[in-house]
Amino acid sequence: MVFHYPNGHPNHYNDTSKQKMQEEAKSTSFANRGMRFEEAINQSNQYYLNHGLAVVHKKPLPLQVVKVDYPKRSAAVIKEAYFKEPSTTDYNGVYKGFYVDFEAKETKNKTSFPFKNFHEHQITHMEKCIKQNGVCFVLLWFSTLKRCFFLDSELLIDYWRNQAQKKSLPLTVIEKNAIEIQPKIAPRIPYLEAVDQHLQTKEKL
Amino acid sequence: MVFHYPNGHPNHYNDTSKQKMQEEAKSTSFANRGMRFEEAINQSNQYYLNHGLAVVHKKPLPLQVVKVDYPKRSAAVIKEAYFKEPSTTDYNGVYKGFYVDFEAKETKNKTSFPFKNFHEHQITHMEKCIKQNGVCFVLLWFSTLKRCFFLDSELLIDYWRNQAQKKSLPLTVIEKNAIEIQPKIAPRIPYLEAVDQHLQTKEKL
Repeated sequence: MVFHYPNGHPNHYNDTSKQKMQEEAKSTSFANRGMRFEEAINQSNQYYLNHGLAVVHKKPLPLQVVKVDYPKRSAAVIKEAYFKEPSTTDYNGVYKGFYVDFEAKETKNKTSFPFKNFHEHQITHMEKCIKQNGVCFVLLWFSTLKRCFFLDSELLIDYWRNQAQKKSLPLTVIEKNAIEIQPKIAPRIPYLEAVDQHLQTKEKL
Repeated sequence: MVFHYPNGHPNHYNDTSKQKMQEEAKSTSFANRGMRFEEAINQSNQYYLNHGLAVVHKKPLPLQVVKVDYPKRSAAVIKEAYFKEPSTTDYNGVYKGFYVDFEAKETKNKTSFPFKNFHEHQITHMEKCIKQNGVCFVLLWFSTLKRCFFLDSELLIDYWRNQAQKKSLPLTVIEKNAIEIQPKIAPRIPYLEAVDQHLQTKEKL
């Protein structure tokens, strides 16, 4: 299902307003890859937080800190650290008493979402959260098509585990099984509406 | 209420077995302060995870990465980074469909728990999570007394917000309102039993 908003066509978050250009300038840093969709998610989380609608945060990157300097009169400086593989997904939090847990991923592909975007530890983590009755999903962004989907993790896991010979999830499958999210001004990625719809569907079953 | 376990007196996690000494050797690193109680919590989370009882993780320290080197044939090395103030509590996850969110703190004090152990951003975060019906609490460790308590965040917040002139939470108040947790072998800090008891009490109200 497609969400419709009263203010007409959605303001895609990759348009070129002055504010956006400033944000883009900010994001031309380390770990730039995939930053724009992630930035839109982070801003949506901030919107939900500010409006008391949900408490969802992106987890910090896990780093192994090896050496720290403590210069006088200054803040401690980490001089040597290494990236560690995360053991969870990137986002989690609480919404109306539900534990929500998700990963946000993007692709330039037009016809399918490559599985290489997901890692075994993320799949395993989602499986464990589902067993605890968490609300687990992925937010998929087709950057070329400018289309965003909410996909229940159970379907992703099912494909990931049982169709190992395939290397991606076809857009046709996503269109049929996921909930399309129309980006808007605020929140940019209104994914909680998809969560509501998902929960309603689950209750009906 | 005190939990009683069939194996008699609890194996406190600060005893001096060989394994523990090895762990202590490990923990004599950066950020050592408060590491032993934190380590016990982390091991408890690992136990709960391994046994499919809950999915709770400690969030990584948020760092602002400024400079990264990419040496050939080696992993990327972070050469300059700074500590950032966290915007949440340290631990969150999912247990039987409930969103759980907590902070673990310790004190050497014997008669009260100093408020300086908590920060405004943690209190604010807990308030927001409670509004979303999350299960929020603090695990308090009196290291000198070797006593551990599960305290509902609502009581902490109440004291924090309304009794600003006081600088600590008296042990007598904690004894009366919190759930005492007896450390054991595995999990070392069986806090989910306190969560169960807390949820039962809430249902009765």
